Amino acid sequence: MENFKIHFKSETEIKNIDHITEKLTKIVGSERISVDEIDRIAYGKDYWLISNLMTLKGVQPTLPDLIVWPKSPDEISQILKIANKYQIPVIPYGEGSGVVGGALAIHGGIILDMKYFDSIKINQTNMTVTVGTGLNGAVLERHLNEHGFRMGHIPQSIRTSTIGGYIAHRAAGQFSGIYGKMEDIVLSMEIVLPTGEIIKTKTYPRASVGPMVDRLFLGSEGTLGIVTEATCKIWPMPEKQGKLSYLFSDMQNCLDAIRETLQTRVNPGVIRIYDIKETERHFGETIKNSKGKIMLIFVFEGNERLVNLEMHITSGNCEKNNGIATGEKPVDHWFETRFKVSEASEFGPYNLVMDTIEVSCMWDKSKELYDEVIKSILSVPGIFLASGHASHFYTTGVCWYFTFSGIPKGDKDYIAFYNDVWDATIRTSLRIGGTASHHHGMGVNRSRWMRLEHGGEFNILQKIKAMLDPNNVMNPGKLYSEEIQKRNL
Amino acid sequence: MENFKIHFKSETEIKNIDHITEKLTKIVGSERISVDEIDRIAYGKDYWLISNLMTLKGVQPTLPDLIVWPKSPDEISQILKIANKYQIPVIPYGEGSGVVGGALAIHGGIILDMKYFDSIKINQTNMTVTVGTGLNGAVLERHLNEHGFRMGHIPQSIRTSTIGGYIAHRAAGQFSGIYGKMEDIVLSMEIVLPTGEIIKTKTYPRASVGPMVDRLFLGSEGTLGIVTEATCKIWPMPEKQGKLSYLFSDMQNCLDAIRETLQTRVNPGVIRIYDIKETERHFGETIKNSKGKIMLIFVFEGNERLVNLEMHITSGNCEKNNGIATGEKPVDHWFETRFKVSEASEFGPYNLVMDTIEVSCMWDKSKELYDEVIKSILSVPGIFLASGHASHFYTTGVCWYFTFSGIPKGDKDYIAFYNDVWDATIRTSLRIGGTASHHHGMGVNRSRWMRLEHGGEFNILQKIKAMLDPNNVMNPGKLYSEEIQKRNL
Repeated sequence: MENFKIHFKSETEIKNIDHITEKLTKIVGSERISVDEIDRIAYGKDYWLISNLMTLKGVQPTLPDLIVWPKSPDEISQILKIANKYQIPVIPYGEGSGVVGGALAIHGGIILDMKYFDSIKINQTNMTVTVGTGLNGAVLERHLNEHGFRMGHIPQSIRTSTIGGYIAHRAAGQFSGIYGKMEDIVLSMEIVLPTGEIIKTKTYPRASVGPMVDRLFLGSEGTLGIVTEATCKIWPMPEKQGKLSYLFSDMQNCLDAIRETLQTRVNPGVIRIYDIKETERHFGETIKNSKGKIMLIFVFEGNERLVNLEMHITSGNCEKNNGIATGEKPVDHWFETRFKVSEASEFGPYNLVMDTIEVSCMWDKSKELYDEVIKSILSVPGIFLASGHASHFYTTGVCWYFTFSGIPKGDKDYIAFYNDVWDATIRTSLRIGGTASHHHGMGVNRSRWMRLEHGGEFNILQKIKAMLDPNNVMNPGKLYSEEIQKRNL
Repeated sequence: MENFKIHFKSETEIKNIDHITEKLTKIVGSERISVDEIDRIAYGKDYWLISNLMTLKGVQPTLPDLIVWPKSPDEISQILKIANKYQIPVIPYGEGSGVVGGALAIHGGIILDMKYFDSIKINQTNMTVTVGTGLNGAVLERHLNEHGFRMGHIPQSIRTSTIGGYIAHRAAGQFSGIYGKMEDIVLSMEIVLPTGEIIKTKTYPRASVGPMVDRLFLGSEGTLGIVTEATCKIWPMPEKQGKLSYLFSDMQNCLDAIRETLQTRVNPGVIRIYDIKETERHFGETIKNSKGKIMLIFVFEGNERLVNLEMHITSGNCEKNNGIATGEKPVDHWFETRFKVSEASEFGPYNLVMDTIEVSCMWDKSKELYDEVIKSILSVPGIFLASGHASHFYTTGVCWYFTFSGIPKGDKDYIAFYNDVWDATIRTSLRIGGTASHHHGMGVNRSRWMRLEHGGEFNILQKIKAMLDPNNVMNPGKLYSEEIQKRNL
């Protein structure tokens, strides 16, 4: 370990590692635990751009002390009791596709790989599926499809992400217009609390039985316990899928067409706006006349007659707002490319820093937020691209998804440059009344805006963390700590 | 005060009442505070059946020490600081129409009447309304209607209840099929915490910024702080309202018709099933052939073409499941009578005990829960009526609403009889996997089932209460206390 640099060097490296390993081996057996360097390196990164860039530059982002693969809530409970006794960090790990450093073991400790939690049980009458949280998203969706159902949670990362990751980050999929975000999808959970108690929340449609305490665990990013199983809503496979696309000259017109559609209680599954730059990048070659325009695409699905009517109403709203119909081709193009991600590794060798930032806001701030964030990104020295699309819409507002790229200037390194762009974006969003994140979560990268994001609520969050996790063993250093409020990596 | 009995006699009666009154008067002035007996009596009851019956029998349910009418979050904050210093209970009060004793000052203290919090501000673009929580529900809906909007939260109690009450109890209105419950309607809140801090949660469509801590205050029944303002979703006034009704011979057929409709993503605003007894009671005189049948009524509303299609699909599902169409007349009858409540006071003089109990469950338990609860109520000596309707439906399940009446037998008084029926019902619901309440909340009456309802979650709830309200001043004795877990009134 002497010959490479570790960025987040654990100050709390486990001293009595052999003793701890022995104790954990008693719980999970010798086959499901590892202290091998190769495993520690593999689990010391996630899909955060900075984690990727570090790796490319020969810097290991973090180095957890050991990896455990538990099989039951009871095993996790026992592991957590040891972690509490010896004050060792525990970080639940799905498939490491988070993009904000949420799964990084920044204080070392035990990586709890959840992949053995892969059960699936469909209830056809209730239209629910009860799943292990280590299950891969694509495996679940495929299984449901084969049985005539659809959860409809289709994030771009679906092939490399788990149900647990979705719950931990209040994730959103491409068809959120119909199926919602994870907070809309999850009905109940089995949770191992930081101190080892196992609880199960009740599965019910709606109730009035005191404070909605179970919602605390949605978006908790592994800091308040480990969700081991969840019961989620599912839907019948759609009879029909319908596609529409429109070009707009004016962003406000385009936003209005969508807003008016949703506010009529018409719900396209997919709605995506691409600003002028992104329209050119994605559709410039295939759709003539798209230059200088804003592309809007829709996918509808469900009951055939309902889809037909929804398409009819949506078309009317687009035309009323000066949209020019461009048929199914742009939608087909999106379907073909929707799981492709530009890899940081493509650009890293050229010293290029390229990332995406998603935030959300209410409708009345949507145009201003887009304009101001683009302006603020472009003001960072070294930036040469700032563009945006919007991919999740509600009757009340929108999620903007910005892409930036640039090359650090002067004496700034890639991390300082990266931080400058993120600071410009998030501070602009917060100033205008937007959020710090719509569906990627806070992790290492965004936790420094938690207090600004939450205001007076932040104090309550800190107290809840201290109460549920008195020894601060669950994914420490994220979300709540005063230290991370000041962190610039 | 010597000449009448007080049921929940305050053990914590304020000793230094003059001193406290003086301090509170400094905050709100002399016009907005009262220690008059007539006010203390008026605010010592709510609309819980037992509270009503006590009053009829000359027993005062509770006797708060004083009533204050604050006008701002800052005044509430100051009042709470005094309450903490002297450990005086504080009970927020809307219009006292709760039916489970939630607003009863069972330990005496300060009633905080919220009626001055009556602001209304519509945001047409975001389709939201920001309202003071002391506002009357009917006043809000009428105001919105005049401006072309609809919140659509129409509980039976709308003329005698407030926004704050709805939030405190996760309330449901008659059109919940479209507009949802309060947890679906509320986007953000201004809250005065038990220790006096004022916080505002952010208004956003959806986000991923850590645990959903704001949801704790939905359903908190005045125990975790006082919500002073809320921003809620609204909708355009519907173009069309459509009505359908069907008679069924078989309950399972009827449930299946509804389930299949909702699971196709068709959302009638109102869906109501009446069992054989309730069909006879409500429709026996006006709808021929309804005897021995189950009535199902629907109200649809929204965009005209959407309503037409939803009605078409719903009709198809009803006919497929052997429903016999009975036109608009039963729906018109419901519209005419929907705000009428059978008053306990009508029956009290005859020694009759009559109440309603709502619970919820998933679809696969819906028929069993109905059958078993009816059976369990009928098994209580003295009962001569047990019937049920269902009035809120989801893709995943249903809310059952049971009505019972009877006359206490043997040496049981009305309270013991009442408790027996409630025990039979709630224990049956919990045993089958249902909840203890769908939208009325827990209050004094149901808090004794909190631990059974929540299992391991209950411990977390108790800790959150202790953390946020260290002196237990906010609506004490409800939801969390060990004492109330054992209470039989």
